[in-house]
Amino acid sequence: MNPLHPKSLPHLFLRAAAGEATERAPVWLMRQAGRILPQYRALRSRFPDFKAFVKTPEAAAEATIQPVDELGVDAAIIFSDILVVPEAMGLDYEMVEAKGPRFPKIIETRHDIATLSSGAAAAERLDYVYEALKITKRELNGRVPLIGFAGAPWTILAYMTEGGGSKTFSKARRMLYTEPELAHSLLQKITDTTIYYLKNQVAAGADLLQLFDSWAGELPPAHYRAFAVPYLRQICEALPEVPKTVFAKGAWFALEDLADLPCQVIGLDWNTTPEFAQIATRGSKVLQGNLDPCALYAGTKTIEKETIAMLRAFGGRHIANLGHGVYPDTPLDGVRAFVETVKSAAWRTA
Amino acid sequence: MNPLHPKSLPHLFLRAAAGEATERAPVWLMRQAGRILPQYRALRSRFPDFKAFVKTPEAAAEATIQPVDELGVDAAIIFSDILVVPEAMGLDYEMVEAKGPRFPKIIETRHDIATLSSGAAAAERLDYVYEALKITKRELNGRVPLIGFAGAPWTILAYMTEGGGSKTFSKARRMLYTEPELAHSLLQKITDTTIYYLKNQVAAGADLLQLFDSWAGELPPAHYRAFAVPYLRQICEALPEVPKTVFAKGAWFALEDLADLPCQVIGLDWNTTPEFAQIATRGSKVLQGNLDPCALYAGTKTIEKETIAMLRAFGGRHIANLGHGVYPDTPLDGVRAFVETVKSAAWRTA
Repeated sequence: MNPLHPKSLPHLFLRAAAGEATERAPVWLMRQAGRILPQYRALRSRFPDFKAFVKTPEAAAEATIQPVDELGVDAAIIFSDILVVPEAMGLDYEMVEAKGPRFPKIIETRHDIATLSSGAAAAERLDYVYEALKITKRELNGRVPLIGFAGAPWTILAYMTEGGGSKTFSKARRMLYTEPELAHSLLQKITDTTIYYLKNQVAAGADLLQLFDSWAGELPPAHYRAFAVPYLRQICEALPEVPKTVFAKGAWFALEDLADLPCQVIGLDWNTTPEFAQIATRGSKVLQGNLDPCALYAGTKTIEKETIAMLRAFGGRHIANLGHGVYPDTPLDGVRAFVETVKSAAWRTA
Repeated sequence: MNPLHPKSLPHLFLRAAAGEATERAPVWLMRQAGRILPQYRALRSRFPDFKAFVKTPEAAAEATIQPVDELGVDAAIIFSDILVVPEAMGLDYEMVEAKGPRFPKIIETRHDIATLSSGAAAAERLDYVYEALKITKRELNGRVPLIGFAGAPWTILAYMTEGGGSKTFSKARRMLYTEPELAHSLLQKITDTTIYYLKNQVAAGADLLQLFDSWAGELPPAHYRAFAVPYLRQICEALPEVPKTVFAKGAWFALEDLADLPCQVIGLDWNTTPEFAQIATRGSKVLQGNLDPCALYAGTKTIEKETIAMLRAFGGRHIANLGHGVYPDTPLDGVRAFVETVKSAAWRTA
């Protein structure tokens, strides 16, 4: 809890997400539960593979809480993966160590899409996530808010049609030109599933939801408007009960559209200056981000300087974070220096 | 030659690059010499590996001319690779089939940089490129202008320090935070070499030079300004004798800085709308680009529609191209539809 506020008031992170002026920016890191922490590596080593880990609610809860204990961040984010959604829809994936995800089968035809499960039935299969949220919520005992999340529909489609990570996502992008109706029908199924999935996350204790559109930057602006934004809108509109953050990496060109979504927070990558984002969003959103994750490889002095420059550039209405997930080989001392710098800097330094 | 102009006038492509109003946009494609052409695949199969191919001037010249014969593009670009520069500086690379480049040794220390060759001595080792340019120039016999090129210093540093392609280029980016002086000394050596390399290309017949900053989009704006722009400036200033194009992929945030460079043309990726680029460059540059390469997977009708929409959005002062290199599995009919649509559309359709 924030020491300046009694327990009965909302936590700093939620007040900031609601657009209130706060005494300082709250801080957390994307991928804060992960390889940067020795505790995580010890926990991870108890499982044969990443998926077994993700599917064990007690372990996922422990990984979620570790960075709160160890780094003193202002929010926990449930330890999971955006690809549990396609899996729940019937498209299995493997997580290949040091390489990333791989889908043995990909979605190519109308028939492939027809065979996918969706909506409440698919979301039901993600019980292990809801269970992890419940355990986490209980064990956090109000210390910090708990963030739930899902992949944005375009990013999930990209994995389902491409079959894994890619330098170009050209298979996924090709579908938008060659079979736009097929793409829309897949996006709708993903969206329907995601809405139930996120409603269940809120029921299980998520205080805020973040949508990760990791491959937003691969699309031309017209396609992002046609194939991404409408589905983000459906999701945001279906979940009025909690604040929502949209992080569309690389989609600087879509900030004006994202500003119209009924979400409260927009996540920014490290290419986007706060000044640009404030103008593009017309000051209508709280901004989250956006230090270059590589800054945390530097010494403490450099990290302090870069972090303070970032805080000043945002001014207020800001949730401090990196511009991307923390890289797994980041020194723990660098992460600590980032968190501590934000926590000891007041807006008034701006 | 453009049929509307006698042989004695500069070619459409060079007039457009000089900012003149032209009867239509000239058109070429990045990576037009490559796997999309059956003639290229036949030629490539005669060599044990990519590097042997690149280092055979007659073959490189043939690959350069193939798309002029086969597609009717308005410019040829010398068939080569940006990584010949680090190789000439003493850092050997391998081109791994279907994976991309790999450097067995990478640059990490001051000593590593000190051992690198640079400037005229390094550029001298690229005789095979100059020879290929001379042969091409002779065989083109004035049909279309010949583009020479090099990687931008930041992108070359990225490969030399990372050791190959990367999802994050975090090793390369880390150096900018942890050892900025080391990075500057390496960038200067690359720049010195590149200037000689490009001067030699002009002497060998290059009519225009393009700088490829493929990993521009990985840098935060402040780093792009500090570690990329000053070296691009040195190169542009050293080569007043020919028009120059800077293509900084993903560097939408740097367009205002790029507009101040003494270059004539700015290349755009497919994320950047012409409207945004025109405002950011204050109308001071000819713009090149930027159809999404994935559009060429579609049928002819879609390609025509997308291409005409692109031409209209740019209006004048435009060189038509894709927003990235053409993908190797693009159907040849799609490429033809793109080229033909540009060639049959006049500005007046705008």
